[in-house]
Amino acid sequence: MTLAPGQVAPGQLDRLAVQDLLAEYGGLLDLGRYDDWLGLFAAECRYSVLPRENFDQGLPVALILCDNRGMLEDRIMALREANKYNIHIDRHLIGLPRIASARPGTIDIEAPFAVYQTDQEGETRLFAAGLYRDRLEMAGERLRIAEKLVLLDTAAVPTLLATPL
Amino acid sequence: MTLAPGQVAPGQLDRLAVQDLLAEYGGLLDLGRYDDWLGLFAAECRYSVLPRENFDQGLPVALILCDNRGMLEDRIMALREANKYNIHIDRHLIGLPRIASARPGTIDIEAPFAVYQTDQEGETRLFAAGLYRDRLEMAGERLRIAEKLVLLDTAAVPTLLATPL
Amino acid sequence: MTLAPGQVAPGQLDRLAVQDLLAEYGGLLDLGRYDDWLGLFAAECRYSVLPRENFDQGLPVALILCDNRGMLEDRIMALREANKYNIHIDRHLIGLPRIASARPGTIDIEAPFAVYQTDQEGETRLFAAGLYRDRLEMAGERLRIAEKLVLLDTAAVPTLLATPL
Repeated sequence: MTLAPGQVAPGQLDRLAVQDLLAEYGGLLDLGRYDDWLGLFAAECRYSVLPRENFDQGLPVALILCDNRGMLEDRIMALREANKYNIHIDRHLIGLPRIASARPGTIDIEAPFAVYQTDQEGETRLFAAGLYRDRLEMAGERLRIAEKLVLLDTAAVPTLLATPL
Repeated sequence: MTLAPGQVAPGQLDRLAVQDLLAEYGGLLDLGRYDDWLGLFAAECRYSVLPRENFDQGLPVALILCDNRGMLEDRIMALREANKYNIHIDRHLIGLPRIASARPGTIDIEAPFAVYQTDQEGETRLFAAGLYRDRLEMAGERLRIAEKLVLLDTAAVPTLLATPL
Repeated sequence: MTLAPGQVAPGQLDRLAVQDLLAEYGGLLDLGRYDDWLGLFAAECRYSVLPRENFDQGLPVALILCDNRGMLEDRIMALREANKYNIHIDRHLIGLPRIASARPGTIDIEAPFAVYQTDQEGETRLFAAGLYRDRLEMAGERLRIAEKLVLLDTAAVPTLLATPL
């Protein structure tokens, strides 16, 4: 549990920084602060959503694939337009992260999540559950998301095209 | 990510203390240890529950408002009475906190939550989801809740008058 | 909040190690990595599942009781067989742990949990909610589960015999 100086092995600072990043990720989405949310990603980044079943069977057919930051920004623009007609509140609950592996400057983590949605009548339902598999990288002094793979347990995600998970 | 001595900026000790406080908050409520739960609040404190929709629209009409500790204690007394007739188990799941801002002695945080309730038949349902916005203050060596604003996504919270969120 | 050298009182290292262990616990179960999951338990260990109602009333009738590691291993073998016919995805969301007590080498914690299950049609439902009460012990340099008591809020857990909670 002791950290050698400069080591980016699983350590205290790293773990708290990972937790901070996940908390920001969910919190900023739920607040609708999409520009700040985009700022959590590295300049070169990849965001994809896959049904977990496909992933387990080695079928890498993504429901969503943004393999650079421009695509992710476009997606957020589309989201803002779509959400004018799909008014709801999202609430992300993200579990404690597992550190899958770490090497200098990079940490691979996994974290379970559940997203609840509340409609205009104020009814809250479980919207989706799944697992984040993130590659996080140090960008200067800050940890940023280089790759985010959202493995989705739930199949029928009705407004998937509009809601980032 | 490095902490200057004595600094109350977002740092390791602070974050773990915030997490501890949130874990105590949910855990003590679910155990029915209301006196200990009251002890998590500062001597001067405020506890309120608002529909998130109202909050977003600048309508500060609270579902519950206890703006001093006496009111909060009264509320807990009423709760104990009411729960003799509304027997259920609560289970709070509180997500990782975001530190919104920090200055010496005070930390403002946000944390998503979901509360499940189990009735006497043993059926568990999602009861409410929402966001805590807490102002935490150092009281001696301990972090205490100076203000707690519960922003409630869920509109139809049937036993709202009896259950602290 | 300061740790004396070598002290196993509630401290930073301990808390992060507790969080790591819980994250591994849920993550390995959801990944189906049952051998690694078994490795989280101490050589001498106890795993039991009780309805919370029974526990509160002092009726220690367990739904599941493995009071040594061999029994736990047998259970996992049975699980693997049963899951050939009960195909589903589990997703554990485990909340922030409360440290109930700590003494040198041992930490007692409590953590709320919710488990979601997704069936073959891709529908996700809340499966169970409850509270973990764990006794964790240092085994060499690693924290291990010496006793795990799963207090189950939810009564009707249909595939209880097949799914570790």
